[in-house]
Amino acid sequence: MSMMKNKASWKKSSDLAFDMKRKADEAIKVFGKDRVINAVLGVLTDDNGKIIALESVYDCLDKLDRADLASYAPIEGDKAYQEKVIEILFGPYKPKSYIKAIATPGGTGAIRAGITNFIGKGDPLICHDTFWGVYKKMADEFERDFRTYQFLDENYTFNFKAFKEELEKALGDSNRLAIILNSPGNNPTGYSLSNEQWDKLLDLLRKKAEDKDKNLSLIVDVAYLEFAGDGNSQREFFQKFENLPPNLFIEVCFSMSKAYTAYGLRSGAAVGISSDKKAIEDFYLAFAHTARVNWSNTNHGAQKVLVELNKKENLGKYNKDLGMAKALLKKRADIFVSEMAKEKIPMVPYFGGFFAFIPTDKAFDISNLLEKDQIFILPSDKGIRIALCSIATSQIQRLVGSLGKYL
Amino acid sequence: MSMMKNKASWKKSSDLAFDMKRKADEAIKVFGKDRVINAVLGVLTDDNGKIIALESVYDCLDKLDRADLASYAPIEGDKAYQEKVIEILFGPYKPKSYIKAIATPGGTGAIRAGITNFIGKGDPLICHDTFWGVYKKMADEFERDFRTYQFLDENYTFNFKAFKEELEKALGDSNRLAIILNSPGNNPTGYSLSNEQWDKLLDLLRKKAEDKDKNLSLIVDVAYLEFAGDGNSQREFFQKFENLPPNLFIEVCFSMSKAYTAYGLRSGAAVGISSDKKAIEDFYLAFAHTARVNWSNTNHGAQKVLVELNKKENLGKYNKDLGMAKALLKKRADIFVSEMAKEKIPMVPYFGGFFAFIPTDKAFDISNLLEKDQIFILPSDKGIRIALCSIATSQIQRLVGSLGKYL
Repeated sequence: MSMMKNKASWKKSSDLAFDMKRKADEAIKVFGKDRVINAVLGVLTDDNGKIIALESVYDCLDKLDRADLASYAPIEGDKAYQEKVIEILFGPYKPKSYIKAIATPGGTGAIRAGITNFIGKGDPLICHDTFWGVYKKMADEFERDFRTYQFLDENYTFNFKAFKEELEKALGDSNRLAIILNSPGNNPTGYSLSNEQWDKLLDLLRKKAEDKDKNLSLIVDVAYLEFAGDGNSQREFFQKFENLPPNLFIEVCFSMSKAYTAYGLRSGAAVGISSDKKAIEDFYLAFAHTARVNWSNTNHGAQKVLVELNKKENLGKYNKDLGMAKALLKKRADIFVSEMAKEKIPMVPYFGGFFAFIPTDKAFDISNLLEKDQIFILPSDKGIRIALCSIATSQIQRLVGSLGKYL
Repeated sequence: MSMMKNKASWKKSSDLAFDMKRKADEAIKVFGKDRVINAVLGVLTDDNGKIIALESVYDCLDKLDRADLASYAPIEGDKAYQEKVIEILFGPYKPKSYIKAIATPGGTGAIRAGITNFIGKGDPLICHDTFWGVYKKMADEFERDFRTYQFLDENYTFNFKAFKEELEKALGDSNRLAIILNSPGNNPTGYSLSNEQWDKLLDLLRKKAEDKDKNLSLIVDVAYLEFAGDGNSQREFFQKFENLPPNLFIEVCFSMSKAYTAYGLRSGAAVGISSDKKAIEDFYLAFAHTARVNWSNTNHGAQKVLVELNKKENLGKYNKDLGMAKALLKKRADIFVSEMAKEKIPMVPYFGGFFAFIPTDKAFDISNLLEKDQIFILPSDKGIRIALCSIATSQIQRLVGSLGKYL
């Protein structure tokens, strides 16, 4: 009998992305970094493979009062942090709804709190069939019923019909369900829903919410928001989150990891949106309780950085830094897309974000072959994820060459 | 119907310690800090009420490579961090057992992971009857059966008899149980178990583990370790954690918050100890999985600081800083104990740690009266907790005067 309680899910706990990264790191030790292509982890690196830490962000951290770094943040996060998250997340597209934010450890904490608070055991959690593996791990751990629909149809377009069918099936099974949607810059496909697709999706949810016995929650993971558009255009859909029926709740999961190159600081937020004041108050209490009994408060310095950096006098420098990071990513993506077209390898159209995606049901086999060329990617049942964020511009041609060879 | 799933525990989620702190902060705004005594929160402040941030710790953080701050730590924490935690936690008293450490967000994450992994729903979690309220919140959240025994007898000594009775009762009800014990420098009483008391307790657990159907886990919260002795003497009990029966597992919950004045960084570790290699491997997998599905990895910079600071060339400076902090706390404790004796107010003998404790069943009434004198403490069913760590030395006499007036 195990000393750990009888629960199987942790037995298959190893994280493929971190495992592949480890393999790549080992290959670099043996062969040197010029001969290894590490296209695994969702971290933005420069063309020498060094992680990019935006100067403005870390200058700001350095300048903080040590008392701010050392002290506990409130369980729910600093008020100023909460307000700043809401301001910068929505930009000019803040919906006219009740909105509250709570600090979380990265986007992970916000997603976890959504999955455990919106739905109970056995309730459906509907997700696209290409997804960040941790969503399913969470659903399994907390015994939510993880269900998927085909995300993209044969034209690589959001498969509304498949979504609608899955939603209707789940509504037939349960009065309470949640939907998780990772857009813009979906991980792993890079796909972003268009404004028109958002309209269709929200119209459908509004219609289903006419049945007042139903509780619908939509969890929107926007981890790659800053890298999936020109800065504002990719935010337009937020404004659609108003005039919601009271039994349709929306949570946007905010993360500092990518936009502030602050992966290791562990700072994010859960942002609740509702037309019902009571629902937002409940959200705030329930999510604060989740924080209290799991991780307590979160990194105080990171919260202070977000507030400081978004002051007028500092914002110009940060925007310049972010612009350079975005330009680097765009340059790599342009080359990758053009090389892929030359090799005639089909891929999901690139909308932005850290990843490109090649649909195939042989991703694990191909991954094994690529490893022989010292190329490391993230395979899944649905295809191959290429971390454009972490490959050197000069390596793209060799990468696409090997892909062409094995696909 | 609430948009949050039907679960009552979050409805009474507010954290009394943070609420009392807020009251104290508001009083300081109105009356000025010289007229307010804030003896609420477990954070070490100087005599001007400013949080102490050890210079050596934050100098070290400043000097880190920004790539280390920005990058993700592995889910389980850096290998170097894990090794360093084990080394400094046990000092010269490392037990000869299988030992592994996993990074967690503060001590909270380590305790939470213990409560959810060692026992299942409805299994007993045995705790002393004076305890950090979050233990019970966690037990309630995860539906563990929280049971208490009288911690200290009429002589303010560990009530072994009460513990034994509660343990035997729980063993009669369940094959799987966990015990949580916060020592040395127990929060809220300040009490520390002696080496002889540890022997008695472990002998009892060893005896009960002769029944191989039983799974016993002991969670030891040592958040206040560094402030509860001369540096090494309070670690002697760790060496008793060897030759354990395979069905007795021990987890020590390590925190950087107090010893490194790093509350806001959120860094700690779960340290598993077992005579069974397989049990330790299971522990490592299970706790890593808990991290993955709740908070992902933890603050990378904090992990690097622990490793750097404990290098020979940096350790002298840190030990000097820590020594000054400990001396300040000791000075306050000495004055407090002496004033309490003068006023003839009974209190739990002070063993170290951040708190002193006055047993009374009228703590909430007295807290209300103290508030009129602009004195803020943490009341509980069992008594009044005084945060010696956060009051100015010059305020102690007034504090004890008011306590004498109302008790």
